[in-house]
Amino acid sequence: MLHFDSDYMEGAHPAILERLAATNFDQTSGYGTDEVCAAARERIREACACPHASVYFLVGGTQANAAAADQILRPWEGIVSATTGHITAHEAGAVEACGRKTLPLPQHDGKLDADEVRALCEAYWGDENREHIVAPGAVYISHPTEYGTVYSLAELEALAQVCRDFDMRLFMDGARLGYGLAAVGADVTLADIARLCDAFYIGGTKVGAFCGEAVVFTKPGLDDHFFTLMKKRGALLAKGRFLGLQFDVLFDQEDGELRYQRIGRHAVELAQRIAEGFRAKGYELAIDSPTNQQFVVLDDETKARLAEHASFGFWERTPDGRTVVRFATSWATRPESVDELLALL
Amino acid sequence: MLHFDSDYMEGAHPAILERLAATNFDQTSGYGTDEVCAAARERIREACACPHASVYFLVGGTQANAAAADQILRPWEGIVSATTGHITAHEAGAVEACGRKTLPLPQHDGKLDADEVRALCEAYWGDENREHIVAPGAVYISHPTEYGTVYSLAELEALAQVCRDFDMRLFMDGARLGYGLAAVGADVTLADIARLCDAFYIGGTKVGAFCGEAVVFTKPGLDDHFFTLMKKRGALLAKGRFLGLQFDVLFDQEDGELRYQRIGRHAVELAQRIAEGFRAKGYELAIDSPTNQQFVVLDDETKARLAEHASFGFWERTPDGRTVVRFATSWATRPESVDELLALL
Amino acid sequence: MLHFDSDYMEGAHPAILERLAATNFDQTSGYGTDEVCAAARERIREACACPHASVYFLVGGTQANAAAADQILRPWEGIVSATTGHITAHEAGAVEACGRKTLPLPQHDGKLDADEVRALCEAYWGDENREHIVAPGAVYISHPTEYGTVYSLAELEALAQVCRDFDMRLFMDGARLGYGLAAVGADVTLADIARLCDAFYIGGTKVGAFCGEAVVFTKPGLDDHFFTLMKKRGALLAKGRFLGLQFDVLFDQEDGELRYQRIGRHAVELAQRIAEGFRAKGYELAIDSPTNQQFVVLDDETKARLAEHASFGFWERTPDGRTVVRFATSWATRPESVDELLALL
Amino acid sequence: MLHFDSDYMEGAHPAILERLAATNFDQTSGYGTDEVCAAARERIREACACPHASVYFLVGGTQANAAAADQILRPWEGIVSATTGHITAHEAGAVEACGRKTLPLPQHDGKLDADEVRALCEAYWGDENREHIVAPGAVYISHPTEYGTVYSLAELEALAQVCRDFDMRLFMDGARLGYGLAAVGADVTLADIARLCDAFYIGGTKVGAFCGEAVVFTKPGLDDHFFTLMKKRGALLAKGRFLGLQFDVLFDQEDGELRYQRIGRHAVELAQRIAEGFRAKGYELAIDSPTNQQFVVLDDETKARLAEHASFGFWERTPDGRTVVRFATSWATRPESVDELLALL
Repeated sequence: MLHFDSDYMEGAHPAILERLAATNFDQTSGYGTDEVCAAARERIREACACPHASVYFLVGGTQANAAAADQILRPWEGIVSATTGHITAHEAGAVEACGRKTLPLPQHDGKLDADEVRALCEAYWGDENREHIVAPGAVYISHPTEYGTVYSLAELEALAQVCRDFDMRLFMDGARLGYGLAAVGADVTLADIARLCDAFYIGGTKVGAFCGEAVVFTKPGLDDHFFTLMKKRGALLAKGRFLGLQFDVLFDQEDGELRYQRIGRHAVELAQRIAEGFRAKGYELAIDSPTNQQFVVLDDETKARLAEHASFGFWERTPDGRTVVRFATSWATRPESVDELLALL
Repeated sequence: MLHFDSDYMEGAHPAILERLAATNFDQTSGYGTDEVCAAARERIREACACPHASVYFLVGGTQANAAAADQILRPWEGIVSATTGHITAHEAGAVEACGRKTLPLPQHDGKLDADEVRALCEAYWGDENREHIVAPGAVYISHPTEYGTVYSLAELEALAQVCRDFDMRLFMDGARLGYGLAAVGADVTLADIARLCDAFYIGGTKVGAFCGEAVVFTKPGLDDHFFTLMKKRGALLAKGRFLGLQFDVLFDQEDGELRYQRIGRHAVELAQRIAEGFRAKGYELAIDSPTNQQFVVLDDETKARLAEHASFGFWERTPDGRTVVRFATSWATRPESVDELLALL
Repeated sequence: MLHFDSDYMEGAHPAILERLAATNFDQTSGYGTDEVCAAARERIREACACPHASVYFLVGGTQANAAAADQILRPWEGIVSATTGHITAHEAGAVEACGRKTLPLPQHDGKLDADEVRALCEAYWGDENREHIVAPGAVYISHPTEYGTVYSLAELEALAQVCRDFDMRLFMDGARLGYGLAAVGADVTLADIARLCDAFYIGGTKVGAFCGEAVVFTKPGLDDHFFTLMKKRGALLAKGRFLGLQFDVLFDQEDGELRYQRIGRHAVELAQRIAEGFRAKGYELAIDSPTNQQFVVLDDETKARLAEHASFGFWERTPDGRTVVRFATSWATRPESVDELLALL
Repeated sequence: MLHFDSDYMEGAHPAILERLAATNFDQTSGYGTDEVCAAARERIREACACPHASVYFLVGGTQANAAAADQILRPWEGIVSATTGHITAHEAGAVEACGRKTLPLPQHDGKLDADEVRALCEAYWGDENREHIVAPGAVYISHPTEYGTVYSLAELEALAQVCRDFDMRLFMDGARLGYGLAAVGADVTLADIARLCDAFYIGGTKVGAFCGEAVVFTKPGLDDHFFTLMKKRGALLAKGRFLGLQFDVLFDQEDGELRYQRIGRHAVELAQRIAEGFRAKGYELAIDSPTNQQFVVLDDETKARLAEHASFGFWERTPDGRTVVRFATSWATRPESVDELLALL
């Protein structure tokens, strides 16, 4: 059976396993105060070209999103998100469990439109009774989005400008950031993200780590007492170096390339081969995704036939009774598996 | 330098590393729905002699405590804890961040006294205005406690009886459970704990895992929708098998003994040698701890001298100006290190 | 100056003031345990034809909504609301501050569509991964809505059926319920509401009281420990009889008619005269409201001219550059004021 | 039957009822934005000799405490309270429901000791691992306390100094402030309180109002967005003037004396007559209370005999099997009632 269900089906990149074994009996202090974490933070700051960034290692995406939202919002503020944004659609109310409201806006291929964010802010600030409602205090975007799409640099700059204009913080969910950086035609670099976002996280879990997300605050002071907030939210790992080590490996060089970037590129290339393969055989793709997730429209008969040999994710039904399914690649996907998949078409 | 600061300074038990390497490219479903987690759950149920228990794998202790408390408390209830209980004294308000109140009672060598719990309950239920106050809905204990002490079976049964009498749930924080089970003179087994507690967790982080705590609900229905609560609290790991695998290894047999028990025994034996060594040299121990943590009273001069060669934890100042320090052993402590430490005295 | 800004600009119905004066030195127990509250509860149960209903007196609408939502939702559930619903659009995140999520659906003249609620539930229950998302646990409606519209009995029954089908509770925000019951063409009675809703509140503040909302739970057990929840949320009044007394007066008879109904009827009749008056002069009404709020479209010049002599509420701008304004009547509105207003046209 | 159960058994001071009647048909804007509230705020600022104070009118004491605590605490902070403090002992976990922790210290006749607060702060700031625990961010005191005692000016200044030394805010619960200001031997004025506390509330409910507490922030900026927090917590009254009016009356002059002060003095004088009467007959008083609450120790026989003619509050059992009961006076207590009570002895 071929597995393209998701990008978190395997363990971790072999380089991580090697480093774990090599350092297993090292003794370090806990809670991320060790030198391994310090080194990983430094590598991340360098990769982001943001020397004063503060970096924290959390365990998972929902945790990173909720903790960051709780940190960057003032008590009277909420966080703007596309209706399909993971924080509002797929995280069991984690942001609300922090007492925070998500403020929904329409999605466009999974993305927020800067003009619509601006209009929401203008409505809020133009409302005489705005003190009765939740203020837009931050903007949540994911890159890539739930639909595998990415923001262009122009789009990201437009969002950052709206945030600056209305004293909001821009937060990027980078659960799959590696695949976004390596996306076909992507013009957004890690340095751009660090420059334009007030906070974001670099996803490890789906990009080669066992688990771990690096939350980055790019503005001094924005992380004030975030360590305690992590503790309060159960997001602080005693053996913190386990997370730091993984990022230290992911942000190391491999053959002259940042390993994190390399992992992303590998997965995206294979995903693009899948897309091309399907298209060549006349299949319809639901969305033009430049990243490691490909959304293919299948009729029931084809779906059943493919499912005998390959597993993939269910996405949604189309109005005409077909199904959109997702094929995801990862750092661990083998080219041969892609060949075998395409041979089934 | 010899390190006895804590029991979470190294990586993970080598058997865990081996299994991680051996299964790294296996592909499994996410969020703990895989077969590895299923197998680990089954092993834990067997070790607990509790076939209908439900088992969930969380990442850390504060997270496990807060999630469990949030799960087992009704909206109008709080959780009774010793004033020194980790949930009320050292978790940054994690329980309160769930909107829950801890109800403090005095500690006795870190333990709750069943009669004092009973008196609190009688006061509550005898109060005509009790609807104005927080009801005692659960009792939190740790085993071993913050002071390395353990409950006797009789003490645990007395607490369980109070809980039954007043419709409360008994919850045990087992961050160091392995060391409690192997404690000198301990008469409490995992099966006793499963029989007497409504919920508890089996600590992995401090007993040989990279991270991970197994939360066990022993009563059917008590875990209703706990999966969603985990998600909501950011406690659900995408690559859930990473946690399940570690518990599968820890609850495997090694030389005819449960590995989890074996790890505990190893650390306790070395800790007892430390205690005996200090005592033999005339040192005072602050508490008679039967587990892997030993609390020694040092004058400043001795403390400074030892600190040149060994690291240990600061606990508290004594009224006469000396210091209580903690020496902790773990699965990874080598007998030679203990010899070297004792040679310093 | 004529004031039609809102229905909470004056004090209280004179009968309330009279009763307050007559009973001022009576001594009663606190927190709603007195006989005045008991009598008011009984009157409400009778008016609702719901003998086993439990009734609680809270101070304001946002408080009543949030407390009721917190009470009727299970920990993993959220509350469905139209995007324009007061709880999601105008209450500063009060429901989210309880850790709860609102699940938005489109509004149709301020109302929810039962089929759309059903579709949302079917999507949730048909989703294999539903444990990752917030379950629809209750449905919030307001009657009248933010737009002055009311549900028909058929619409209300359809919503109640969806709730029964998917184990959800139906909650009605009745901040202006008196005006809904007296609405032109209304076929929904208080008994219907009690029969079809699991919980609702009867608004006092906007229907003749100084303050106060009567939260009614129609299902036994649904109010379990609600007293403590009120205390916890700061919603429990020491001099509880002050609220009970007002509802006892509002649910007393006046000239053979329930005073609450009579107040509603008075305001609706005057509001309809306003609507007819505007229409007769060729003005456009933004919505066909059968209740005490009328939404008139004014060009800037007319708005400015009217504003010299009358105050009214701003609602929204129309795409063609005009303004929708609101004229609200209440128990206190004098017919002469309406005449004077219409004479300005 | 004579009623001395509590100070909230009657309606409101007649001057309040008169003003309500006189202004009933006035039309004002909502939510405390009206001129009546503005006037009341000004009177309070004057009485406090604190021209830049910001004043908000809330409905009840638990609400005022929780809202103020939520406002003045930073996310990583908790609030220090005596174990008997109302916020920690009798408010159903309202502070914790805001996600905040109360930090308990011993009580001394209901009061906090400044040195013990200082020691707690020194322990926190001297703890290397303080980021794992809740920071002391505010100090809660009540004046009078739960035991009817009051702080001396020296005690209050000592607490204020500790707060300044450790960057904490000092908050006073003044549910019965009127009786504290008029206490026998009291040397603390409203101006002292405003000068020494960062926030406090002036109790209305128990000092002559139907309901209402005036929360005062004495430092500019400390009330930032408190209006929205009130809305979010359901503490914002639509007919806000109803609260403002009551404080405007209470802070008006009556016979050359502030009415609020006069009400307090009346009740305290009668309470002291009760105390003297009991003492003269050989009864023991449990505490030497200078305010409107008197705590008398009764044996069971006497208690039963008195209870035939008078009602009073149960406080606690004494170790020798007797009972401490509370006799409370208020603005409404008639001297004749006191005479009748004393005649029963």
